[in-house]
Order: sequence, then C-alpha cells, then structure tokens
Amino acid sequence: MKRNAKVSTAVIRRLPRYYRHLFELQQKGVERISSSALGKSMGLTASQIRQDLFCFGGFGQQGYGYKVESLREEIGGILGVNQGHTVVVLGAGNLGCALIENFKFNANGFQLLSAFDVNPELVGTMISGIPVVHADQLEDYLRRTPVSVGLLAVPMSAAQGMADRLVRCGVSGIWNFTNYEISAPEHVVVESVHFSDSLLALSYMITQRERSGDET
Amino acid sequence: MKRNAKVSTAVIRRLPRYYRHLFELQQKGVERISSSALGKSMGLTASQIRQDLFCFGGFGQQGYGYKVESLREEIGGILGVNQGHTVVVLGAGNLGCALIENFKFNANGFQLLSAFDVNPELVGTMISGIPVVHADQLEDYLRRTPVSVGLLAVPMSAAQGMADRLVRCGVSGIWNFTNYEISAPEHVVVESVHFSDSLLALSYMITQRERSGDET
Repeated sequence: MKRNAKVSTAVIRRLPRYYRHLFELQQKGVERISSSALGKSMGLTASQIRQDLFCFGGFGQQGYGYKVESLREEIGGILGVNQGHTVVVLGAGNLGCALIENFKFNANGFQLLSAFDVNPELVGTMISGIPVVHADQLEDYLRRTPVSVGLLAVPMSAAQGMADRLVRCGVSGIWNFTNYEISAPEHVVVESVHFSDSLLALSYMITQRERSGDET
Repeated sequence: MKRNAKVSTAVIRRLPRYYRHLFELQQKGVERISSSALGKSMGLTASQIRQDLFCFGGFGQQGYGYKVESLREEIGGILGVNQGHTVVVLGAGNLGCALIENFKFNANGFQLLSAFDVNPELVGTMISGIPVVHADQLEDYLRRTPVSVGLLAVPMSAAQGMADRLVRCGVSGIWNFTNYEISAPEHVVVESVHFSDSLLALSYMITQRERSGDET
C-alpha cells in the first residue's frame, strides 16, 4: 500500500470520519458502497472521496465501489489502530471519569491502563476496572510501563506542568482536554479537544441563519 | 462590515481559533500584531491569515498589522457571541456535570440556563448554580423559555430520541456529545464533538512518526 508522507491536514481529519462511517455501514449490514453513496451519506462529493482515498493508494474498483469491511480495515491500518497503543488518564475528575467510563478506547486501538489523580478519595479505587494511582507515582509507573499517550484531564492550572512531566517520561502524544494551549517539543504530538472552538462554530452557524432569516 | 455568505468550512473552523488566540494575546498585554506574527503563533502563513480575514471584510492596515482587541471584537461579532444565545444541558452525568462545572459558556456567548436528567438523586439539586430539572419537563420548560441550543450529553441509546424532542421544541442547534450521528432537519444545526475522531487523528500522527522513524 502506497503511503504519502505529505497528506494534508484536511484529509487526515477526514480519515477518522470515514472509519466511523464505515463502521456504521457495517453495523447496518452494508457490504459494498459506491463513492457517490459514501459521499452522500458523509456530505462529501464522490470525487473528493476518490481523491482522499487515492492519497493512500486508492482502494476502489471502477464501477464496483468499495468493499466496506476491507476499506475500513485499510483505513484502520493507516490510522494505526492495530499498533498496540496505550493510554493513561491524568485527572480522574468528572471529565476524566466520563471518558474512562464511556469512551471506547479499545475500539480506537488504545488500551487504557491507569488513571492518575491526587485526590485521596480516588487514589486506590477502581473506575470501570481501571485503577486510580497517585499522581506522584507517574514517573515510576511510566518507567516500568511505557505508554504511548497521556490524556490530560487535569485543571487548566496544572496542564502545562503535567504535560512537561509526560514529555520527560517519553510519551509519544498528549490528548489534551484542558482547554489550555500546552506547549511540547516537536517530537511529541499534541492533539487538543477544544470544546469552545466547537461551540463557537455552532454559534456562527446559528447566527448566520438568524441573520439571513433562512428558516427553511 | 462585509459578510460573505459562502465562507468555506475550513475558514469557519479557523475563526474560533483566531478568537481564542487573540484572547490569549490580550491576556499577555499584546495590543497590535502583524499577520506574519499571528500566523507564526498559530501555525498558519501570513497570507492565509490575510485571506481568511479578507473573507469577512479585512481588518488589517497595511504595514501596521491588526489591533488585537478590535480584531477579537470583530471576530466575536461574526461568531455571534453577542447574540444572547442560551443553552440547556441534557444529561447531568459525569460529562454533563464536567461541562456545567468547568466549561465557560459565558465566555463563548452562551447563557447556561438549566440541566435536565431523569436521575431522582439529581433532579431538584443545583450543579454550580444551575438547577437540574426532570427531563419529563423539557417540553414545558422550552415552551416557557425559548432556548437556542440543547447540549446532548445523554447515553448514546437516548441520543436520537432526545434530539427529536429538542427539534420539536424549536431549538436552533444541538451540541452533540453522544458520539452518535444524530439526524435533524436542515434548519437545525448539529455540531458534534467526536472524541474518537480526535484520538484517531492523534493515533495517525503517532503512527506516521513511528513508521518513518522520525524521532527527532
């Protein structure tokens, strides 16, 4: 399979959507889909889909469309869901807890190992089968158990300090939920979930409709 | 101010980032910034920034850069942060609770009015000053108090049903945290926060680096 090192951010951002979408099609028992049908259900044009997938070697067969299962496997491979990635959660407050209890780490190729917190009421307990370890033991833990990603769900004021500790421990990536723009060296990937960017985009779209009076 | 109705999704997605970034600059006491300095700090080119802002009428002055405060106000206006938008939270579990307690709705132009849940231990209580109302009373409540946006933080199995109820009550938008692809009629804006898309993008980036051996 050809892999293009210079894939645009927009394409990378669409790959997980393909992956998710193909899973939903699989669940519905769809075995084969044309690029135009796939596009329609994702709000993209057929040519955009063909272009996107061509970046990674193209998987379709002219006139036959894509096999849902194998396309999903290919995309999963590109996304690295079978690389044995591991993750620990930093901060087991409401948000950390919600993610531990409800987010399907496994379905996205990540094994959730542990959570870390400083709250004595949480340390030593289990959340959905995941042990909560004292944050003071983070370095010891990561020395024994190399971890791919640290999920940051600590208060904003602790975000950068905790990120620095994760970097020193050699994680490959930080999944940042703190709404703080943490900085990290080049070789550590930081992916931030900015709730406010999402709400402001929604605000923009609502406002545009209100202004244009487009209440179809 | 000129407003272009046909602004690309990519530009819309960048506007909240500008807004957030300009706020951080304001906090640091920066009063004026050139498009190249703004670009550098955001990982964009100066010409991309000039192009983006030109879509909305352009605010810079050749050779003088942008006034941080007024640019932020202009962008806030475009995003609709001063439109008096209101929001209710559906589902006051861990995630709903985390958002109620920590997310700065006001800073994004939304007034958080109430939360709804079916859990008898939560109904009637207050979370950070926000009353938790029984979900059965949603329709009554929304008849008396028109609300712009419903934040969906219910279990996935209840997502579509709750979305349908919000639509029937006339909300303009749904902020969807259920990880379920809810469907809604054209005139209702659905903005979804897909945690898995974010983690898979991170997975892709880590995997690329592992494969290329780029461990600089």
